[in-house]
Amino acid sequence: MARVSQEHLEARRRQILDGAARCFARNGFHATSMQDVLKEVNLSAGAVYRYFRGKDELIHAVVTEVLDDVRTAFERVGRQAPPPPPYELIGAVIGELRRERPVLRVDGSSCFPRLVVQVWTETLRDDDLAKVIRDGFDKVRAVWGAIVRGYQEAGMMRADADPDAVARTMIAATQGFLTQQALFGEVPVATLQIGLRGLMSMGEVS
Amino acid sequence: MARVSQEHLEARRRQILDGAARCFARNGFHATSMQDVLKEVNLSAGAVYRYFRGKDELIHAVVTEVLDDVRTAFERVGRQAPPPPPYELIGAVIGELRRERPVLRVDGSSCFPRLVVQVWTETLRDDDLAKVIRDGFDKVRAVWGAIVRGYQEAGMMRADADPDAVARTMIAATQGFLTQQALFGEVPVATLQIGLRGLMSMGEVS
Repeated sequence: MARVSQEHLEARRRQILDGAARCFARNGFHATSMQDVLKEVNLSAGAVYRYFRGKDELIHAVVTEVLDDVRTAFERVGRQAPPPPPYELIGAVIGELRRERPVLRVDGSSCFPRLVVQVWTETLRDDDLAKVIRDGFDKVRAVWGAIVRGYQEAGMMRADADPDAVARTMIAATQGFLTQQALFGEVPVATLQIGLRGLMSMGEVS
Repeated sequence: MARVSQEHLEARRRQILDGAARCFARNGFHATSMQDVLKEVNLSAGAVYRYFRGKDELIHAVVTEVLDDVRTAFERVGRQAPPPPPYELIGAVIGELRRERPVLRVDGSSCFPRLVVQVWTETLRDDDLAKVIRDGFDKVRAVWGAIVRGYQEAGMMRADADPDAVARTMIAATQGFLTQQALFGEVPVATLQIGLRGLMSMGEVS
C-alpha cells in the first residue's frame, strides 16, 4: 500500500515537471505563469503546490534536471571503451539528448535543445544554478579529457595538444550544435559529423 | 548647427543602448526594469522615452544590434583572401566580438558573450527577432561555405565533405565557445585554437 502511494507521488511529480518543462521550452521561464503550468498538466493548484511551493522552486527543479540529463549524457557516452572518434562521441551525446524525455517531443521534434539554451540563460542570474552547471562542466571536462589522452596514447592525435583544450573544443561543438537546433530547428546529427570529419581531414595545417 | 544636433542625438542614443546592454548582460532582459536603465545611463525618463517608447523597443534595439555585430564579425573575418585555416578564422571572430563595444567591459572582462546567450533565448519567443537571427545565420553560412570550398579547391580538405556541413560545424564551435565564456568566464581564445588543431591533427579516422 505504501509502495503504491510512493509510486503515485513520483508519477505525479514527474507529470508536473514534464508539463512545466514543455511550458518553459515553449514560452520561456519568465513568460510562463503557474496558471499555464496547471492548465498544461490538468491539475488543481492544490495538487501542484503539494510538490512545488511556487514557480521559482519549479524552475529550479526543471533546470537542475536538464543540467543533470546533459551531464549524464556526456559522461555515459564518454565512458565507452575503446573511445570512439570525436564525431561519433559528439553525435552520440546529441542523439541521447534528443531521445531524452519523449514527453518533450512536439510535432515529432524534441524541444530539449530549446530548453537547454533557456537553462543557460537562467544559470547566468542564479548563483546556485551557476554552481550546478559549473560542477557538471568540470566533471564532463575530466571524462572527455581522459578520452583525449587515450587518442594521444594510441598515436591518433598530436601528443603536444592540451587534452583539456581539446575536450573543451569537443564540448563547444556539441553546445553550438544544440544551439543551432534550438534556434533554427531540426538539423540531422549527421550534418555535424560530416562537418567534423571534413575539418579533421585537413590534418596539420600550418 | 543641425549637424551638431544630429551628432548629439546619435551619441545620446548610443549612450542609452550601451547602458541598457550592460543592464541586460548583468540581470537579463526580464529582470531589468526601465528604472534600472535610467539609473545606469543617468538620464531622466523623458530623455530616454524620446528615443525608445518602452522596454520592449529597447530590447528589440539591443538584440538587433548584437545580432548585427555577430553577423558582421563572421562576415568580415570570412572575407579574408586567401582564407586562413579554421582555427584562425574562429579565433578571429571571437577576438572581434570580445573587442566589440569596449563599453560592455566590466572589470576588464567583456560581457558580450553573456549578452549573446541571452539574445538567443530572446529570439526563441519573438518571431521578428527569430527572423533576424535566421537571416544572419544564412548569410554567415554562405560566406563560410565559400571558404570551405576554397579549402577543397586548394586540396586542403577532402573534396566530398559537404561545405555547408563544415561551415555549420565551424560556426557551432564558435557559438559553443562563446557559451563557455558566458557561463564560465574568461577562457583564452588560444584554448579553442589548440583544441581545434588537436582535433584536426587526427586526420582521417575511420
